[in-house]
Amino acid sequence: MFYIELKERHHEILEIVKREGPITSEQIASLLNITRSAIRSDLNLLTMSGMLEAKPKVGYMYVGSMERQKIADYLNAIRVGDLKSRPVAILETTSVYDAVVLMFLEDVGSIFITNEEHYLSGIISRKDLLKAAIGGGDIHQMPVGIIMTRMPNVVTVAPSEPVVEAARKIMEHEIDALPVVDEIFRNGQVFYRIVGRFSKTNITKLFVEIGNKLGGDWFE
Amino acid sequence: MFYIELKERHHEILEIVKREGPITSEQIASLLNITRSAIRSDLNLLTMSGMLEAKPKVGYMYVGSMERQKIADYLNAIRVGDLKSRPVAILETTSVYDAVVLMFLEDVGSIFITNEEHYLSGIISRKDLLKAAIGGGDIHQMPVGIIMTRMPNVVTVAPSEPVVEAARKIMEHEIDALPVVDEIFRNGQVFYRIVGRFSKTNITKLFVEIGNKLGGDWFE
Repeated sequence: MFYIELKERHHEILEIVKREGPITSEQIASLLNITRSAIRSDLNLLTMSGMLEAKPKVGYMYVGSMERQKIADYLNAIRVGDLKSRPVAILETTSVYDAVVLMFLEDVGSIFITNEEHYLSGIISRKDLLKAAIGGGDIHQMPVGIIMTRMPNVVTVAPSEPVVEAARKIMEHEIDALPVVDEIFRNGQVFYRIVGRFSKTNITKLFVEIGNKLGGDWFE
Repeated sequence: MFYIELKERHHEILEIVKREGPITSEQIASLLNITRSAIRSDLNLLTMSGMLEAKPKVGYMYVGSMERQKIADYLNAIRVGDLKSRPVAILETTSVYDAVVLMFLEDVGSIFITNEEHYLSGIISRKDLLKAAIGGGDIHQMPVGIIMTRMPNVVTVAPSEPVVEAARKIMEHEIDALPVVDEIFRNGQVFYRIVGRFSKTNITKLFVEIGNKLGGDWFE
């Protein structure tokens, strides 16, 4: 890398590319109200210095945004199926009390609920259980099926979806965990087979692994 | 970029640098049982092709690992203070029932507990509240001070710490949220003033923002 002193016009070009990139040299020239040939040497210099990158058929990009684009691409390549945890599921007829005990034993924030054919029928969170526990009813007699969030209101994720998409669903719907499901089509109906659990904990763990400088190969 | 056909020795060198990098040319030569001058042209070629990068005084690095290093550096530069949420705190004397109600109202997973001087004295989680709720005691009369996790067993984080470090604490101690605190020294004792809340939710949100290709400037 060599040292160059930036002139006023270099700063103007950098600002434009930062804001509008990817952008062609024609578009930059037009925004500056000058001819394309007048900025050719400036663009060459900014590209040589590493501040801009010229992508064929795309245009000029600010290198800072490209690095962030690479990070985004990296994250978007990691799939839910690479990270998912073992699911914890019970039948709709299980009592709320037994669900609480299981939640403590397994130390999970959400339990998935299935019908008798073992397809996903609902989900129950710590919040749901807490609400039932202070509600005054007999939680030994009350089945979880009464207080669970029921399909189709359960937000699910497929193993092939990027973890970024799963994280977006978690934030958007303000939930802690997603059932990871395969869709089964039978007699024109869709059923969901539970194949995993994906939660904020999985994302936090991934975050630590990516941020760990001593780490080795991550997900290769 | 130009096209080069890799010879057997190029593959050997790449494997070594991938596994052992950063590594000097002397060390590579020694692992291959040949002289340093014998691999000089191979190293030049691999560097020119962009597969290896030579860092002065450090050695050769595999470019794949450098990209990951850059991502790790990027994440490690984001501080807890940049992301923290508003804390929710109550006095030790508050009843468990009122804590449950507050948890629902504020929709948080953990509530911080303070002494009368408003310094951090404990923390209470949904799990703690659920345990108390099914325990059979009178949660209207029971103060949270009895069932909370008490200092110094509460794991805290400073605003200046990297979010990666906060995520590591969350995973290591298997907790949902950390109080973000300033340390106050008085009469040779340390007190913790609560300035925020940092949880798996903050990390999940950050993850979405970094992964969002349409996103703009992130944290600049």
